[in-house]
Amino acid sequence: MNARLQIGLIGAGRIGKIHAENVATRVRGAQLAAIADVNRAAAEEVANEWNIPNVTDDARALLDDKTIDAVVIASATDTHVPLIEQAAAAGKHIFCEKPISNELAKIDRALDAVKRAGVKLQIGFNRRFDPNFLKAQKLVAEGRIGTPHLLHIISRDPSPPPLEYIRVSGGIFLDMTIHDFDMARYLIGEVSEVYATGDVRIDPAIGTAGDIDLAVTVLRFENGVIGTIDNSRGTSYGYDQRIEVFGSHGALTISNEAPDAAVISDTNGIHASLPYYFFLERYTAAYLEEMRAFVEAVRQDRPSPVTGRDGRVPVVIALAAKKSLDEHRPVRLSEIEMQNA
Amino acid sequence: MNARLQIGLIGAGRIGKIHAENVATRVRGAQLAAIADVNRAAAEEVANEWNIPNVTDDARALLDDKTIDAVVIASATDTHVPLIEQAAAAGKHIFCEKPISNELAKIDRALDAVKRAGVKLQIGFNRRFDPNFLKAQKLVAEGRIGTPHLLHIISRDPSPPPLEYIRVSGGIFLDMTIHDFDMARYLIGEVSEVYATGDVRIDPAIGTAGDIDLAVTVLRFENGVIGTIDNSRGTSYGYDQRIEVFGSHGALTISNEAPDAAVISDTNGIHASLPYYFFLERYTAAYLEEMRAFVEAVRQDRPSPVTGRDGRVPVVIALAAKKSLDEHRPVRLSEIEMQNA
Amino acid sequence: MNARLQIGLIGAGRIGKIHAENVATRVRGAQLAAIADVNRAAAEEVANEWNIPNVTDDARALLDDKTIDAVVIASATDTHVPLIEQAAAAGKHIFCEKPISNELAKIDRALDAVKRAGVKLQIGFNRRFDPNFLKAQKLVAEGRIGTPHLLHIISRDPSPPPLEYIRVSGGIFLDMTIHDFDMARYLIGEVSEVYATGDVRIDPAIGTAGDIDLAVTVLRFENGVIGTIDNSRGTSYGYDQRIEVFGSHGALTISNEAPDAAVISDTNGIHASLPYYFFLERYTAAYLEEMRAFVEAVRQDRPSPVTGRDGRVPVVIALAAKKSLDEHRPVRLSEIEMQNA
Amino acid sequence: MNARLQIGLIGAGRIGKIHAENVATRVRGAQLAAIADVNRAAAEEVANEWNIPNVTDDARALLDDKTIDAVVIASATDTHVPLIEQAAAAGKHIFCEKPISNELAKIDRALDAVKRAGVKLQIGFNRRFDPNFLKAQKLVAEGRIGTPHLLHIISRDPSPPPLEYIRVSGGIFLDMTIHDFDMARYLIGEVSEVYATGDVRIDPAIGTAGDIDLAVTVLRFENGVIGTIDNSRGTSYGYDQRIEVFGSHGALTISNEAPDAAVISDTNGIHASLPYYFFLERYTAAYLEEMRAFVEAVRQDRPSPVTGRDGRVPVVIALAAKKSLDEHRPVRLSEIEMQNA
Repeated sequence: MNARLQIGLIGAGRIGKIHAENVATRVRGAQLAAIADVNRAAAEEVANEWNIPNVTDDARALLDDKTIDAVVIASATDTHVPLIEQAAAAGKHIFCEKPISNELAKIDRALDAVKRAGVKLQIGFNRRFDPNFLKAQKLVAEGRIGTPHLLHIISRDPSPPPLEYIRVSGGIFLDMTIHDFDMARYLIGEVSEVYATGDVRIDPAIGTAGDIDLAVTVLRFENGVIGTIDNSRGTSYGYDQRIEVFGSHGALTISNEAPDAAVISDTNGIHASLPYYFFLERYTAAYLEEMRAFVEAVRQDRPSPVTGRDGRVPVVIALAAKKSLDEHRPVRLSEIEMQNA
Repeated sequence: MNARLQIGLIGAGRIGKIHAENVATRVRGAQLAAIADVNRAAAEEVANEWNIPNVTDDARALLDDKTIDAVVIASATDTHVPLIEQAAAAGKHIFCEKPISNELAKIDRALDAVKRAGVKLQIGFNRRFDPNFLKAQKLVAEGRIGTPHLLHIISRDPSPPPLEYIRVSGGIFLDMTIHDFDMARYLIGEVSEVYATGDVRIDPAIGTAGDIDLAVTVLRFENGVIGTIDNSRGTSYGYDQRIEVFGSHGALTISNEAPDAAVISDTNGIHASLPYYFFLERYTAAYLEEMRAFVEAVRQDRPSPVTGRDGRVPVVIALAAKKSLDEHRPVRLSEIEMQNA
Repeated sequence: MNARLQIGLIGAGRIGKIHAENVATRVRGAQLAAIADVNRAAAEEVANEWNIPNVTDDARALLDDKTIDAVVIASATDTHVPLIEQAAAAGKHIFCEKPISNELAKIDRALDAVKRAGVKLQIGFNRRFDPNFLKAQKLVAEGRIGTPHLLHIISRDPSPPPLEYIRVSGGIFLDMTIHDFDMARYLIGEVSEVYATGDVRIDPAIGTAGDIDLAVTVLRFENGVIGTIDNSRGTSYGYDQRIEVFGSHGALTISNEAPDAAVISDTNGIHASLPYYFFLERYTAAYLEEMRAFVEAVRQDRPSPVTGRDGRVPVVIALAAKKSLDEHRPVRLSEIEMQNA
Repeated sequence: MNARLQIGLIGAGRIGKIHAENVATRVRGAQLAAIADVNRAAAEEVANEWNIPNVTDDARALLDDKTIDAVVIASATDTHVPLIEQAAAAGKHIFCEKPISNELAKIDRALDAVKRAGVKLQIGFNRRFDPNFLKAQKLVAEGRIGTPHLLHIISRDPSPPPLEYIRVSGGIFLDMTIHDFDMARYLIGEVSEVYATGDVRIDPAIGTAGDIDLAVTVLRFENGVIGTIDNSRGTSYGYDQRIEVFGSHGALTISNEAPDAAVISDTNGIHASLPYYFFLERYTAAYLEEMRAFVEAVRQDRPSPVTGRDGRVPVVIALAAKKSLDEHRPVRLSEIEMQNA
């Protein structure tokens, strides 16, 4: 494929805008060709920003456009499955934001459609493309720390999302921890069992909305590794995204990154800058690199770096975590699969 | 009390030697007056080192000596309870190495004896006196990070103890994690429930001996905090003793300390020195400070900084952790107490 | 000014390419309208990359183009002064790479031309726009560390430039330290006296070419601050760009930044990643931000953030440093000005 | 020598007390046998602390005591030379605090006396025994960073000494920088030339007393290395004692050490603990280790680790630095030696 990949963006919200800018200006070999959003004004705003003539409030029009090679789906979660099915049927390659869906049956329907159509599907687990975690994965895979024994993921947001979002999000495990479940699989492998505990500590309204804002999840992996994930929906010091892998020959840590390396010493102590405030700042490079990887995979006809299965399994883990929390006991992933069967 | 506290040491092994040197040379207001060890040669070696004339292979003789004000019990674990009972009966103040015993009934017998005699008892949970953890406790107690939400303890040894020791140690939770259970109580408060998982990853012989060498323990505290403890019996990079407390207004971390602050940059990276190799190096100051605190508590007639109850509760937690591991479910501390009742 | 600033690029070499990409894709309010390079193929390559129709091998054509509002001069140093004069005469605003010239008389000619024309001139001292140094400047200016007493700049390249470049570069002070002289002025203020010492330690051929590869320069500032700059033309560990300002109420340090925050602990030590390899990696953001600042200054009619005088004074300091090295004594800047008068 | 080395302490002031405690309690193979101080009460206070029966206000008595093997001279600087002469004549081995004297002629007289008597002389340049600098010296000597090119020493006190002390101290170079000159020689080798600049920035009264409180010294070494030393008599953040050696194959840094490794993240930043407040805290281990080294050198009849010459050369460098400051030019050490000849 010599010509630039013609990409249609579906969904011009916060994440859609990031993909728009990246495709429009920073991804070689791709062209942002069309933008669809049910809110036409939102689509037009992004289109104006990047001089994109093709704007619609109907994703269908975009999917029917023969000049479009691939779509980036960044619309509301409940549109993901039908859009994947339609895009696959139209022969478009698909980049879809996470989660595909919170329901396994729907995910399976979407993945079947993709398989039948033979198009590529990449799920937006962007953290895999963060330079830090990319390097972590490489170092672990190369055996730099020997055989992994332990994994720790610390993943804390600076502040909770709006309550209306929490109410429909499916809960902390499907909304927030799902990124960490993906990271766990990316670094270590397949999970077999989950134990989760949690509480409401930041805002009682989150509890009223049926969710928690503090969670600790213990993972047992098929290869014997034990993992922990700690999540909080509110820190006072910004976004906290750290990882540690401990193995037979060493340990690897990824600490937070800050916007600058300034350190002040004064009579009160030694003071460094806070980490990046939230995911838009911390994962700027990751959003760009995942899109570059998608374009490369399509153009070079290489396997998707984050497959449909990679989109599905973290949902299974999240459902197991929720069940564990509810039933106050460790839950095997096979229990979730059996429920779904 | 103006005269120096006359201290008799029972047990001249590895830890006994540390206490001997500290009392003999670095604890104001105390004098190392006598040394007892069933291995008389061991007792004499230490006595010669510090010019102590009073040496015996019979702890009884030391306990009968009216000039002795207090004893430091650093002999084998199974001698702790009878020695505490005898020392209490003889009116000696008691510093006893951890654990008092692995059996709650025996611990309770010893604590009763202490209570009846009205002597002071301090348990050798030395880590409380490490300058780092001392400061951590102070900062948390002062509310420097607000209300605590999460606690993480990383506690990994550089190498496993001998198998013969593992066989009689009571297992990883009673032998190794017990220090971390004490630290958890010291920093956060009382534990209500434990979930533990673990495996044999370093040496199959440890499994054959009925123990594990890798463990992750999740603690639920009465105040709602969630804690995790990770233990490994073998790192490649020395002793790993870190702590993090996350709260409503901030987070506190204690990282490892190294013997020096040298950093080399070369073509392969930026290289810092390994942390202290093991507890003798890392907790040098802690061993000294706990002994100073004991002597002060006795001389000033102040409460023991690490009471008999502080020696007992971590055993309850350890027994709960073992039960959790065996039964593959979270276990409440009240279950252990009921078994013991 | 509502329309986008039409920018012509003169010089499509290494730095020119960076400016081209930034203007073409990442600077709001600007458009890359034309590219000139005496090597037409080089100009065309860049033009193709960013779809720029207007390409020429004659900068004159670009300067005569009435639709061009501003030029970015990134051609060879000896072309800077005539191009500035011509661009000023043509009423173009000017962004010019450092140094304007190594000769003060020529610089003064160029600055006169700019003054007469009333156009804006910004010199490419990009490091001022590095997020770290930007913050350092702000913190110092705000008095965060009180009255400055000391400045240390560490500025070491990973490897020397080609010998043919060194021969025409004017020497280490005019070529390399000049950035540090600018940084010194940016952070602290005007320099009054310089003492320099140096040697050839890396490559004798650099000495044969009449230059040195190791230098220490001591600056005395008009406000009493004492500064040191250390330069080496070759490290084994990448680009080393650090700063420390010590003042009456504290100290501020900027350490190096690395591409990732991975840290490995193993039996040999604790290993972090090397800093960015060289200026293209370290100063990516700085190159972008300086261009944004230029476009903003022109569009908002605000003063240039790096004036012609800011381009001239570091050359004076560099000439003083060279004289100090040659004459083995401290040299006042006024001596250089008197020579030039 | 099997018996313990009998040590007499002359001078029971601040440093004398440190040596007393170390010899009395922590140096194997040595015994604190006698204490002399012109202020008998001061001598008695220390003697009581460590149960030393032999107390005098006349150092002569101590030197006449045949049972004393070695003396530690920690009395006022102007007593060092006569005491060294008398101690040498009496056949005592000598540990003498720095400086021997601020006058080269007197130093040479003392060194002659030591040479004639064949006793050992160790000068109290304690920083050589700091675990950090000890390791730095070893790493540099082993070639870990290749051939050294640059040395930076940062050496700042938390607060100035009393003015009455400054008036008689000989000035900043003889009083404060002298430790850094020793460190420079220890790490790199012999100095050939010095350039110094400085100012009064903290307290005008220091200027009135004829001294400065801020200094930057540039050293040229015989092996081509260039060094800088920065001194301030007052920081807001404690004692600042850092070193960097840059070489052909890497760089080595020693950063400050803090009493604890606690780090707090909160809404204002990430906060670490201040370094040790001053030399008594920072160099605790160094004071002990230098005394152990002295006792070992005497008992094993090994060369002194810090010779009389090591005590003399830093004075030469300090005199050169003072001359450089006064005459505003680089000064070769040979100029000082010629003045002295």
